[in-house]
Amino acid sequence: MKNIDIAYIGGGSRAWARNLMNDLALEEDLCGTVRLYDTDRQAAQVNEKIGNMYGKAPGAVSDWNYKAVGSIGEALQGADFVLISILPGTFDDMDSDVHLPEKFGIYQSVGDTVGPGGMMRTARAVPAYEMFARKIIEHCPDAFVINFSNPMTALTAALYKVFPGIKAFGCCHEVFGTRRLLAAMLKDIGIAGDASRDDIEVNVLGINHFTWIDRACYKDIDLIPLYRDFANRHFENGYCIDGTWDGSFFSSGNRVKFDLFRRYGLIAAAGDRHLAEFCPGWYLKTPEEARRWQFSLTPVEWRKRDRIERMERSMRILAGGEPVRLIDTGEDAVSLIKCLAGDGTLVSNVNVPNDGGHRGIPIGAVVETNAVFSGDGVVPVDAGRLPRDIEILVLRNVYNQETLVEACLERNEEALFRAFANDPLVHLGIGDAKRLFEMMFCVCRPFWD
Amino acid sequence: MKNIDIAYIGGGSRAWARNLMNDLALEEDLCGTVRLYDTDRQAAQVNEKIGNMYGKAPGAVSDWNYKAVGSIGEALQGADFVLISILPGTFDDMDSDVHLPEKFGIYQSVGDTVGPGGMMRTARAVPAYEMFARKIIEHCPDAFVINFSNPMTALTAALYKVFPGIKAFGCCHEVFGTRRLLAAMLKDIGIAGDASRDDIEVNVLGINHFTWIDRACYKDIDLIPLYRDFANRHFENGYCIDGTWDGSFFSSGNRVKFDLFRRYGLIAAAGDRHLAEFCPGWYLKTPEEARRWQFSLTPVEWRKRDRIERMERSMRILAGGEPVRLIDTGEDAVSLIKCLAGDGTLVSNVNVPNDGGHRGIPIGAVVETNAVFSGDGVVPVDAGRLPRDIEILVLRNVYNQETLVEACLERNEEALFRAFANDPLVHLGIGDAKRLFEMMFCVCRPFWD
Amino acid sequence: MKNIDIAYIGGGSRAWARNLMNDLALEEDLCGTVRLYDTDRQAAQVNEKIGNMYGKAPGAVSDWNYKAVGSIGEALQGADFVLISILPGTFDDMDSDVHLPEKFGIYQSVGDTVGPGGMMRTARAVPAYEMFARKIIEHCPDAFVINFSNPMTALTAALYKVFPGIKAFGCCHEVFGTRRLLAAMLKDIGIAGDASRDDIEVNVLGINHFTWIDRACYKDIDLIPLYRDFANRHFENGYCIDGTWDGSFFSSGNRVKFDLFRRYGLIAAAGDRHLAEFCPGWYLKTPEEARRWQFSLTPVEWRKRDRIERMERSMRILAGGEPVRLIDTGEDAVSLIKCLAGDGTLVSNVNVPNDGGHRGIPIGAVVETNAVFSGDGVVPVDAGRLPRDIEILVLRNVYNQETLVEACLERNEEALFRAFANDPLVHLGIGDAKRLFEMMFCVCRPFWD
Amino acid sequence: MKNIDIAYIGGGSRAWARNLMNDLALEEDLCGTVRLYDTDRQAAQVNEKIGNMYGKAPGAVSDWNYKAVGSIGEALQGADFVLISILPGTFDDMDSDVHLPEKFGIYQSVGDTVGPGGMMRTARAVPAYEMFARKIIEHCPDAFVINFSNPMTALTAALYKVFPGIKAFGCCHEVFGTRRLLAAMLKDIGIAGDASRDDIEVNVLGINHFTWIDRACYKDIDLIPLYRDFANRHFENGYCIDGTWDGSFFSSGNRVKFDLFRRYGLIAAAGDRHLAEFCPGWYLKTPEEARRWQFSLTPVEWRKRDRIERMERSMRILAGGEPVRLIDTGEDAVSLIKCLAGDGTLVSNVNVPNDGGHRGIPIGAVVETNAVFSGDGVVPVDAGRLPRDIEILVLRNVYNQETLVEACLERNEEALFRAFANDPLVHLGIGDAKRLFEMMFCVCRPFWD
Repeated sequence: MKNIDIAYIGGGSRAWARNLMNDLALEEDLCGTVRLYDTDRQAAQVNEKIGNMYGKAPGAVSDWNYKAVGSIGEALQGADFVLISILPGTFDDMDSDVHLPEKFGIYQSVGDTVGPGGMMRTARAVPAYEMFARKIIEHCPDAFVINFSNPMTALTAALYKVFPGIKAFGCCHEVFGTRRLLAAMLKDIGIAGDASRDDIEVNVLGINHFTWIDRACYKDIDLIPLYRDFANRHFENGYCIDGTWDGSFFSSGNRVKFDLFRRYGLIAAAGDRHLAEFCPGWYLKTPEEARRWQFSLTPVEWRKRDRIERMERSMRILAGGEPVRLIDTGEDAVSLIKCLAGDGTLVSNVNVPNDGGHRGIPIGAVVETNAVFSGDGVVPVDAGRLPRDIEILVLRNVYNQETLVEACLERNEEALFRAFANDPLVHLGIGDAKRLFEMMFCVCRPFWD
Repeated sequence: MKNIDIAYIGGGSRAWARNLMNDLALEEDLCGTVRLYDTDRQAAQVNEKIGNMYGKAPGAVSDWNYKAVGSIGEALQGADFVLISILPGTFDDMDSDVHLPEKFGIYQSVGDTVGPGGMMRTARAVPAYEMFARKIIEHCPDAFVINFSNPMTALTAALYKVFPGIKAFGCCHEVFGTRRLLAAMLKDIGIAGDASRDDIEVNVLGINHFTWIDRACYKDIDLIPLYRDFANRHFENGYCIDGTWDGSFFSSGNRVKFDLFRRYGLIAAAGDRHLAEFCPGWYLKTPEEARRWQFSLTPVEWRKRDRIERMERSMRILAGGEPVRLIDTGEDAVSLIKCLAGDGTLVSNVNVPNDGGHRGIPIGAVVETNAVFSGDGVVPVDAGRLPRDIEILVLRNVYNQETLVEACLERNEEALFRAFANDPLVHLGIGDAKRLFEMMFCVCRPFWD
Repeated sequence: MKNIDIAYIGGGSRAWARNLMNDLALEEDLCGTVRLYDTDRQAAQVNEKIGNMYGKAPGAVSDWNYKAVGSIGEALQGADFVLISILPGTFDDMDSDVHLPEKFGIYQSVGDTVGPGGMMRTARAVPAYEMFARKIIEHCPDAFVINFSNPMTALTAALYKVFPGIKAFGCCHEVFGTRRLLAAMLKDIGIAGDASRDDIEVNVLGINHFTWIDRACYKDIDLIPLYRDFANRHFENGYCIDGTWDGSFFSSGNRVKFDLFRRYGLIAAAGDRHLAEFCPGWYLKTPEEARRWQFSLTPVEWRKRDRIERMERSMRILAGGEPVRLIDTGEDAVSLIKCLAGDGTLVSNVNVPNDGGHRGIPIGAVVETNAVFSGDGVVPVDAGRLPRDIEILVLRNVYNQETLVEACLERNEEALFRAFANDPLVHLGIGDAKRLFEMMFCVCRPFWD
Repeated sequence: MKNIDIAYIGGGSRAWARNLMNDLALEEDLCGTVRLYDTDRQAAQVNEKIGNMYGKAPGAVSDWNYKAVGSIGEALQGADFVLISILPGTFDDMDSDVHLPEKFGIYQSVGDTVGPGGMMRTARAVPAYEMFARKIIEHCPDAFVINFSNPMTALTAALYKVFPGIKAFGCCHEVFGTRRLLAAMLKDIGIAGDASRDDIEVNVLGINHFTWIDRACYKDIDLIPLYRDFANRHFENGYCIDGTWDGSFFSSGNRVKFDLFRRYGLIAAAGDRHLAEFCPGWYLKTPEEARRWQFSLTPVEWRKRDRIERMERSMRILAGGEPVRLIDTGEDAVSLIKCLAGDGTLVSNVNVPNDGGHRGIPIGAVVETNAVFSGDGVVPVDAGRLPRDIEILVLRNVYNQETLVEACLERNEEALFRAFANDPLVHLGIGDAKRLFEMMFCVCRPFWD
């Protein structure tokens, strides 16, 4: 059993951190320590207690030592791996991100990636990420750093801008969802009833949440022509992998995905809610338009309620009223950690700066691509190139995020506004753009001090 | 006097061709023949007669031989220079280009460059340009080819795609207009009352009608800081170089130009009507919005009336009722021809494929840039690079025009629609986009036979 | 057991083909047919017989069907995999390649990759490879094509130039040798006595036989600093992995490798004999200089003798005088075939056109790089970039081989001579270069008919 | 008359400075001050006196104020133009540069550009250039800086590395010499007896002293086919523009130029002595080989004698024993200065960092190219691209000079040796290379303090 040392920033997390605890408890070849740091120290202490319960849960094969610590330096010192999952600001801040723009006719289905919401979230998060990078230089410059927070592209880029030598990458499960859809398709058309996500191999291009698949296979079966038929057959009425999309804020009828395939011939590899935000004129003109495309705009109210439920569940677990149960989380961070620790080789999708293997995208821009994970680190594969019509849609965001991240690192409000006014979702004249910006940025400005 | 041989395609033109006749009559170092070819042979014959009158006009120093010919091959055979100015289709076709999209809430101030109108115009013109290029290979592969028609970028690109060795370039006077504005500014602020357009040196970047100036000087005075003050001072109320913009379809208050400068710090170097079409969400949401920005949408009705007036004027000239009068046209095509014929060196802006000197734009894409004109041909200068935020706006059009031109050359309706649906002006879902496309394309389809 | 269909061009081979037979017999998850085609049909028939004996050898777990065929089309039709290992010309031709240049003071340690010898060999082989590519288009365009013949880079490039959609790659074991050296080092310095080549992970850059390693690890141990000490310690006296280099034409004291490491800080990953040919001024001025660097020039006479021994051994096997014995060949072609057939994922080094992942080398040039082998095909990893001083040494060969391959495909003797005169090994004035060229090319000219 | 302010570093120069004085006295549209700074203050004072005599010479139309100053800061303060022409070290140092390598069989015809000599000269000059750049930042960051010293490429590059915003360029007359050869050719073949260098237009590519012309015209006559015949006709016996090459250290029979044209089809545009140093295996193996190619190796002894003659002549002028006589120097620096001061536009060749217009050469590397000189500054033209076989020869030097300049700026002796050992002229094993380096570098080391 290889002994490793993990620092978890945002260690009070009730989502990503719990998945990690679960998956570590199930991994037989690793053991070690996880130090939890959170600005909400109490949440970290709750997670220390719950984390230490995971090793005792039925089915656990590995018992980790969880420890809430009082400073980020204490968490990082000596770490082999640093995991980051934070909420930039509060859900009230996110309320402003998502719902203020609606007054100007701008609708966002998620509001955490691009658009006015994603940009404000970036503005709030970058100062923290800047600090993380500096602390990593000081305490554990050789550690692998895994970012789980959105906006994934911008925040991973910020880490690299502050510390170009950082060994960071962003992990996101949206591509898994698309592989799951492809497996469901194989069942639906009677080709392989037992195919699972892991049996589907895909080549990944683009950026996080606007990710694309140009090759997909199951064993030696090419899935692209099968998907063509599938997309055409289900385009009108939608195809929902989990029963019905209506009523869920995360499901969809995949009509956006099918429309994009019919336009361009490539599989868009993220949830429809995310994809729609990159093509607002097509899917997000009004909430009704979104419904016609069979996806929902997630209200921040729901997130607030969900948070309370998660807190209550934590309390029940601590009080012994609910057992810790090990599940199949579907995440692969622990498998990647194992490979990076020198045990095995795995190919998975990841968000890292383009080193030339994603042609058509500037060198250094953070892209989503497959990579080989092994003792030699994270080595992206040659992703190839997007078709021209998609490439320009991606580039538009790549360029704007570059301006955005630089503006945040320099605390340059004028440049931030320039990025804001250039965002595809901000279809406003300069006057209205300025008014919306002023209203939204006031909840972010304190983060820039 | 150097004797040269010119072929004029679209030789019945009442605008560009007349300017050329005027300027040739005023050029003392050149003489020769101009062969006029036009699908409207009668118009070419009228121009033959009028052309031959120019050499006799008061002030003329050079007498050229104009000759209407019956085939394009006859026009091209042995030509040193080929000039092209054609109207792709009729003004009724253009009516469809400009006004049909309005039913879907898409407003175009000109409708001949980008947007649904520009694309349809391209679809109609490319087959003709393809034929021109093939005939040039056959009859005069070494001739310099000057294109005056819009869409300038797409049509010049089409010539190069058919005949990569063609010595073609596009000439447009929009940058001259901006240099004129800078000269007016110098007068306005009391620095140089007698500065003229020709005294203003500028560096030119971008593409036709979405052209940018990042350096401008008058003698050794840097004009950028002066323009900054000027733009700020006149942003609210506009500044019209020719009195009032209202009532003219070609003038403007330059508010779009000032807004773009305030956003990006570079001088946009085309008329506001053209610029607005590249940023539709900002200036072209409604006709009222356009008026607030102090420019007009040119109705095609006006073009039809103007055409009749020009025809009547031609008749009067032919009938001796109106003398031919030599004027200062402000065009520089004849000066460029003189340099290319081996007499002198001149630097001017031009539309040619990027050979690497315009960094950030793909090699081979047609850009607008300064070039050295001399016996060695047209050699573009190193234009440098646009700032990132403008570059991506330009790239979006560069990419889309590439798809557009390829689609037209391949007569690929599906690819044409893909370009159409990707155009920034087409802010429609796929269903509406398809409906509009079908309505518009039916007047173009015959051109593809 | 997955059933696959292999075509072997050069199927009379007594080296590569026998290794393949050996490894197929040891692979439990594959079975199928191997069709052997060779211009020496008798040799192919001998291999058919011997091949069919392999499945019966002690330890064999898979029984393949070998069949000598009379035409290349018959071999290729329906193939899933095409393997190519041919000798371009005869050993007498090779005698000319290697030994004629010695009269002009040009010494080659191998003479099959670069230099006058490598170029002439290319000139002889390209017409055959051109024909192979055309036949593959006709008979099995979707097959994976594995090239084993030298010059690896030029011949793989030729396949792609004729058929850009070919799924071809070149396999070479020289990098394995360097990984073996690293494993031996670990034993030598007492860190891991049982480390084998397969435990050593490396990142691979450059081109075949002038390949470079910039990262190497064993589990989580970084091997670069260890190699630095090792190279310094053994630089003067050499370090021979197999006892003594003297007397062997394939072994060496690794002094070239150590010298290159001390110059540039990267591990050169090919045998010293090959490396030396890329830096002739340093290691190959005279045979004595080569000996001082502890490697030998392989005389073609040796190859002729070796060939006879192999033929005699074949006869003994056929006659039952020598049993077929399964060994560990150290090759990995069969493992790669298995992955490509959809069973597993493997990362290995390979020669393929650069798709952008090897920065600093032109897109499309054949490079040696790691790649992921799986049902999704051969996907190169992002190799990164060579340090500037090495990159230019590599580029010089990349550029020259481009001219070389084009010249051969166009049967353009003038361009071939230009490449010849530009080769680093040809340190001659134009007169001598021409004389040598004429003498050497006369044995190649018949191949161009 | 435009009043300008010039700082001259190396103001004691008896060659470049005198040419400048001559040309300024003949320029009717400029007047002003020239401040002369030199480490040899006495030489600067002599030049002050002689300079002030030029304005009074017969034919002078402009009277400049020359002033020797005691510090570089005093010279630079307020300068519009900075001119630099220095000798890095002494002629004794240059003796070591040129003649020490001969002991190792390395022959250099000039020894001031590339090869062991050029590199050592760079090592001595870079610290001074670094200081110049820093002083320019301090005293006149907006001044145009013209470098006349060799190695032109490396020293111009050094200025940009220290001060990326510097407006510097290198001026060299070697291309003029080639244009003069082309004019002589026109006379020789009876096409234009009166053609002068200025009538020959050329497109310029490559780097200083290894410069290439791919297009050349006289009026509308293409000179490339004429040169092909010319080169073939004179290849065997040479063609010397100034009578006989033998006995002159600057003339040649142009056989190297003809050989390069016959190899590659482009006109090499520098003196044969310079060209030969870039292709040492072909022309410089021995002094006899050089003579066969009809050029001489310039002994440093000659330079020492020449220096004394120039000093004596200065003394005679000062003493009134020899009048100042205005001549046609053939240099164009003063014409360029005039354009940059806002008066006129000129196209000339220049050495500046590549901004993308010289495709195939890395962005930022100093190249020789045509540029437009005007009030807008120095704007290089799109040079296009060298053919592959020449490009790689150029690249080899571009890469090595990059290592060289960085090594000198970092005072990194190890990196300097790496560049030294990589130079095409240094065809030595590592041991000899090191020995030669140690011997040569000892005269340079003091410059690095």
